[in-house]
Amino acid sequence: MENTIDTIYDRRSVRKYIDKEVNPDIVDEILRAGMFAPSGCNKQPWHFVVFNEKDLIQEIKAMHPYASALSTAPVCIMVCGDTEKEMAPGFYQVDCSAAIENMLLCAKALGLDTCWMGIYPWEETMADFTKRFELPQHIKPFALISLGYAENKTPRPKRYDSSRIHYNKW
Amino acid sequence: MENTIDTIYDRRSVRKYIDKEVNPDIVDEILRAGMFAPSGCNKQPWHFVVFNEKDLIQEIKAMHPYASALSTAPVCIMVCGDTEKEMAPGFYQVDCSAAIENMLLCAKALGLDTCWMGIYPWEETMADFTKRFELPQHIKPFALISLGYAENKTPRPKRYDSSRIHYNKW
Repeated sequence: MENTIDTIYDRRSVRKYIDKEVNPDIVDEILRAGMFAPSGCNKQPWHFVVFNEKDLIQEIKAMHPYASALSTAPVCIMVCGDTEKEMAPGFYQVDCSAAIENMLLCAKALGLDTCWMGIYPWEETMADFTKRFELPQHIKPFALISLGYAENKTPRPKRYDSSRIHYNKW
Repeated sequence: MENTIDTIYDRRSVRKYIDKEVNPDIVDEILRAGMFAPSGCNKQPWHFVVFNEKDLIQEIKAMHPYASALSTAPVCIMVCGDTEKEMAPGFYQVDCSAAIENMLLCAKALGLDTCWMGIYPWEETMADFTKRFELPQHIKPFALISLGYAENKTPRPKRYDSSRIHYNKW
């Protein structure tokens, strides 16, 4: 398995996948990685809805304006926040983001690729997912993750920008 | 270096550090990892203010209600969001959270430990940091990270919770 720092640098948003199923044990490992994220007061205000039925994934694709990654992805995971569990109002988004980043890195380390597609903060899209999946009032659809084996290898980008770094003052 | 998945499982919030400086190259590598996080439309709406002066770190500790980790941490990094760069209002928080998670994992992989302390969403604390560090209007203080070498090794927790996982429906 790749070491941590190479995984961080090699993770890219991948939107085209080959026709290969993902072993359920791999999905479970990725969910486990998500649950090991830090969260405010360790409240873990997250839920994960795993979609692995092709028709359902295509229906979800049609519900989201930028979900081309779901055309070929064999698995889609909807990450939801729980407003009854979060440390403070506005914090499930922080905690769910940390969980998702763990999941993307875990997937990459296991040889899979992902794309993170926000549902929050677009209220109309959130309402559509809430209605379609009959989510309880306190469960907020936050983001989708596509998961699969990449069609192409994407090169490591240049992202380091020293102008974003400040020492001991702004 | 530890592999990615062990790093994810071994990362803990550490609040006591030994008296050992952090090499600036290590800090730079951790910042680089932050900048390799995904962000909405790749907007990268983040800034990093690194504090390595003891008196200043103690002053920051006094400004935050839950920053005991700064009593002994040799380095503190303030992560800020840029509302002029974010993809949509409410998104810098998502992007900065992904960047922070990368930084925590990179630090762990390099043998250091961290604690993530929110500034957002507490408006009064945000205002205090904005004023003290004369942040521009569009730069929002989001979180602090303490960084150093842990005094004690913290065991891996149990966090997997199958009740948070759903298949093909809520």
